[in-house]
Amino acid sequence: MQHISLDIIKSWERFYRANFINCLTGFKSVSLIGTVNSSGQPNLAVFSSIVHLGSDPALVGYINRPRAAAPDTLANIESTGFYSINHIQESFVQKAHQTSAKYESGVNEFEATGLTTEFKPGIIAPFVAESNVKYAMKLLEIVPITHNNTFLVIGSITDIFIDETVLKPDGFLAIEEAGSIASLGGDGYYNAQLISRFQYAKPGKEVKPIE
Amino acid sequence: MQHISLDIIKSWERFYRANFINCLTGFKSVSLIGTVNSSGQPNLAVFSSIVHLGSDPALVGYINRPRAAAPDTLANIESTGFYSINHIQESFVQKAHQTSAKYESGVNEFEATGLTTEFKPGIIAPFVAESNVKYAMKLLEIVPITHNNTFLVIGSITDIFIDETVLKPDGFLAIEEAGSIASLGGDGYYNAQLISRFQYAKPGKEVKPIE
Repeated sequence: MQHISLDIIKSWERFYRANFINCLTGFKSVSLIGTVNSSGQPNLAVFSSIVHLGSDPALVGYINRPRAAAPDTLANIESTGFYSINHIQESFVQKAHQTSAKYESGVNEFEATGLTTEFKPGIIAPFVAESNVKYAMKLLEIVPITHNNTFLVIGSITDIFIDETVLKPDGFLAIEEAGSIASLGGDGYYNAQLISRFQYAKPGKEVKPIE
Repeated sequence: MQHISLDIIKSWERFYRANFINCLTGFKSVSLIGTVNSSGQPNLAVFSSIVHLGSDPALVGYINRPRAAAPDTLANIESTGFYSINHIQESFVQKAHQTSAKYESGVNEFEATGLTTEFKPGIIAPFVAESNVKYAMKLLEIVPITHNNTFLVIGSITDIFIDETVLKPDGFLAIEEAGSIASLGGDGYYNAQLISRFQYAKPGKEVKPIE
């Protein structure tokens, strides 16, 4: 087993270090965040640091990179207060990754990448029509992370749109059946295969797989 | 496609809602966090909301549930300032899930679940010997999330220990080759299979898979 110290990490070339450190935290949720600016211009960008914050109330966070590196999604959310989060499926993963290109602010990434804008009644944020698991968010708070100028963007879920075949009787969503994928690092995309679900764990009782 | 409004979400039974909302954000990094208390008593618990914050400096965050629900890991990190994060592999996923049981504070979850404590020179936090991708963390800041009494725990990476076979020439870690897994919801565990890595995306140039 290889030991890598902080001195070694600091000595690495920038892109090597970014690949390594971004992979080290493991597989990630990866989704497309859809917004509009104050003029109604759509924006779409891939985000892989989406994190479940709680179920009651239903809160979701994501990490936005520093403003200089990733300005549009954050500015649009600040301006309008709403955004959509759209799972990525293998059928459009290449287009989803293409949204990570540094397009000018005026560019509509739906058009630039060939993905389809979908508007739902009463929701100003655009969805990705191709995605079959997606949800609408209302901004609650943008928490600055001072250590590296990133932001934790906290929102509450307002509406959910799912391919109903993924919904199990106990509320579990087998999103792999809809083709939803995971990511690793900045450029790796993965399909997921269920090992097992496990029972609720209790002290003194060996937990078993759910049959 | 099924539309689920906030009123419907609020009407759901507690465990149904928890399963649903926890799955909605997608596949997650899942790891075991190892700590000691001020007396040196080890603690081990499974966390699935680990998030990459940045590579330079190398920062990692995780969400800790409210203190009443998950007190020990947070208290130990506050007390000692250090913790380990250990990838989970399929060979010990059942034991890893068992650490989610509500053991009394005095219980050593390594012993209770049959996982092996491993100490490294100069690092006070215990590692999981069975894990072949793991890293040591130094606490930077605990950010309270006031909306639901959770916490974003921010730390910097100090040391990394990996099975060197996963390291690719450009720094990418093919952690699936070490058997590292992902999770979904509170009780689902998944293996991951690479679809593809993609080139760095640029405007006006169609991104291609890396061969």
